[in-house]
Amino acid sequence: MKWVESVPNFSEGRKKETVEEIIRETEKYDKVWVMNWSMDKDHNRSVVTMAGEPSQIVNALFDMTKKARELIDLRNHTGEHPRMGATDVIPIIPLKNITLDECKEYANDLGKKIGEELRIPVYLYEKTATSPIRADLSVIRKGQFEGFVEKIKLEEWKPDFGPEEIHPSAGVVAVGVREFLIAYNVNLGTDNLDIAKKIAKSLRYRTGGYRYVKALGLELKEKGIVQVSMNLTNYKKSTIYRVFETVKFEAARYGVNILGSEIIGLIPIQALVNTCEYYLGLDDFDASRIIEYRLMDILEK
Amino acid sequence: MKWVESVPNFSEGRKKETVEEIIRETEKYDKVWVMNWSMDKDHNRSVVTMAGEPSQIVNALFDMTKKARELIDLRNHTGEHPRMGATDVIPIIPLKNITLDECKEYANDLGKKIGEELRIPVYLYEKTATSPIRADLSVIRKGQFEGFVEKIKLEEWKPDFGPEEIHPSAGVVAVGVREFLIAYNVNLGTDNLDIAKKIAKSLRYRTGGYRYVKALGLELKEKGIVQVSMNLTNYKKSTIYRVFETVKFEAARYGVNILGSEIIGLIPIQALVNTCEYYLGLDDFDASRIIEYRLMDILEK
Repeated sequence: MKWVESVPNFSEGRKKETVEEIIRETEKYDKVWVMNWSMDKDHNRSVVTMAGEPSQIVNALFDMTKKARELIDLRNHTGEHPRMGATDVIPIIPLKNITLDECKEYANDLGKKIGEELRIPVYLYEKTATSPIRADLSVIRKGQFEGFVEKIKLEEWKPDFGPEEIHPSAGVVAVGVREFLIAYNVNLGTDNLDIAKKIAKSLRYRTGGYRYVKALGLELKEKGIVQVSMNLTNYKKSTIYRVFETVKFEAARYGVNILGSEIIGLIPIQALVNTCEYYLGLDDFDASRIIEYRLMDILEK
Repeated sequence: MKWVESVPNFSEGRKKETVEEIIRETEKYDKVWVMNWSMDKDHNRSVVTMAGEPSQIVNALFDMTKKARELIDLRNHTGEHPRMGATDVIPIIPLKNITLDECKEYANDLGKKIGEELRIPVYLYEKTATSPIRADLSVIRKGQFEGFVEKIKLEEWKPDFGPEEIHPSAGVVAVGVREFLIAYNVNLGTDNLDIAKKIAKSLRYRTGGYRYVKALGLELKEKGIVQVSMNLTNYKKSTIYRVFETVKFEAARYGVNILGSEIIGLIPIQALVNTCEYYLGLDDFDASRIIEYRLMDILEK
């Protein structure tokens, strides 16, 4: 079976019933599984992690977007996290037996259907972006729901699908294909925030670092240490072990040790395979040699 | 679902139809999957790797043993590998959601049934052994099929189940619970076999090394290098990374580099988790954080 993941974000983080009602839309699909979901009150936003067969996932996402349009009104929405739609963003991520190009077709179909049938303007982003400025979600979202009333009228912000004005209550939505994102933090044996910031700078793409790394220096006050906090937006190309080793050799410069690292949330098995291949110098190894991975193939049949 | 693996060995490595007929016995079980099987002509032996729900696996193993009794006659058997039965050994290995103790019960039930219903004497081995000398399969197997006619009469070799004389054509069989065995080799940047042998010696349990490591120094003539070839009989306690790092620091003593390492056959996901935890200093990580592992749980339902 082909597998994709999707992590739709909805602009409701306070009313549990609303989020549950949106999630319930997935139940009629036998090859769609909600793996996890969470709400954030301050952000007033919820995030659903789901996986399954791509055409069913796309249908479920459409139904969820429709339900969110019915239940969430952005005119009454406040929260710390920037947002532009009731369903704010729908990323589609290749998981197994599927190419990026196939995922792009699914994203396009979904965007078209949301635009035409739900009358919500759709912006394709990341790998699916139709112009370079649309690749970065934060650039699309600039101005937020309130600003989009005017922004949408600009030629360069004409939606990829749907009407050329925002949906009055549901705003606009971004749909796109991206690689799996790994949230990865390395803890340093110092309380000197400056050092964490300098190391983050050396890793971050924007400041000359690795192509698929976003990085910040943070203070962990309770623990009395600092942390290099990262998003790896393509773990296949900017790998975990390379990032870890780079933090290590940069930290050594300041006489600082690495205390450890942590992976936040889920991680694809391939990222572990890459790490083991590097450290053990493994020859001729791939995920199909892992029993549980093999069993997953068997169970699908 | 509870998961076990079993890797029964049959004393037939030349007649494909015979092995296929034995394997066909698994087909009536909906929660038993044959993952792999192979025949060796020189050894005149075949090895089947299967996984599934423990009670079904045990029933399938019984049926396979019955079929092997019907089709394989050890009185006409020659081969390089030592053997004592038509079905020579049946290891049961915990895979997922199951304890060693639960596996032991299944092994006991299976042994009892083979002994009583098939009239083949059964020796419980490894973790299931009823006396220390029975823990090691090679000690049980000493004397082989031919020798067992007399060996079985000795008080210390009274079978755990079944008749006190060998089955005339099917011999005797060992049934037991063991941990997953990882075959792991490290290649050295030298053609000096002596160095590989010395390093193997430092790792091997028998000569003072790690508790769950069997190790040999081997020549890889085609590649012009030598190798430390190992069996890790409990990868949770004698871990891959520890073994690898030990080979590395022992090799350094002789000014020899590690060229790489290789895992032969399958490996449990937990072994990769352990490796990543060590090298990345991962906090608060376990297999449930791996997407594909999570999906496997989902698919089982």
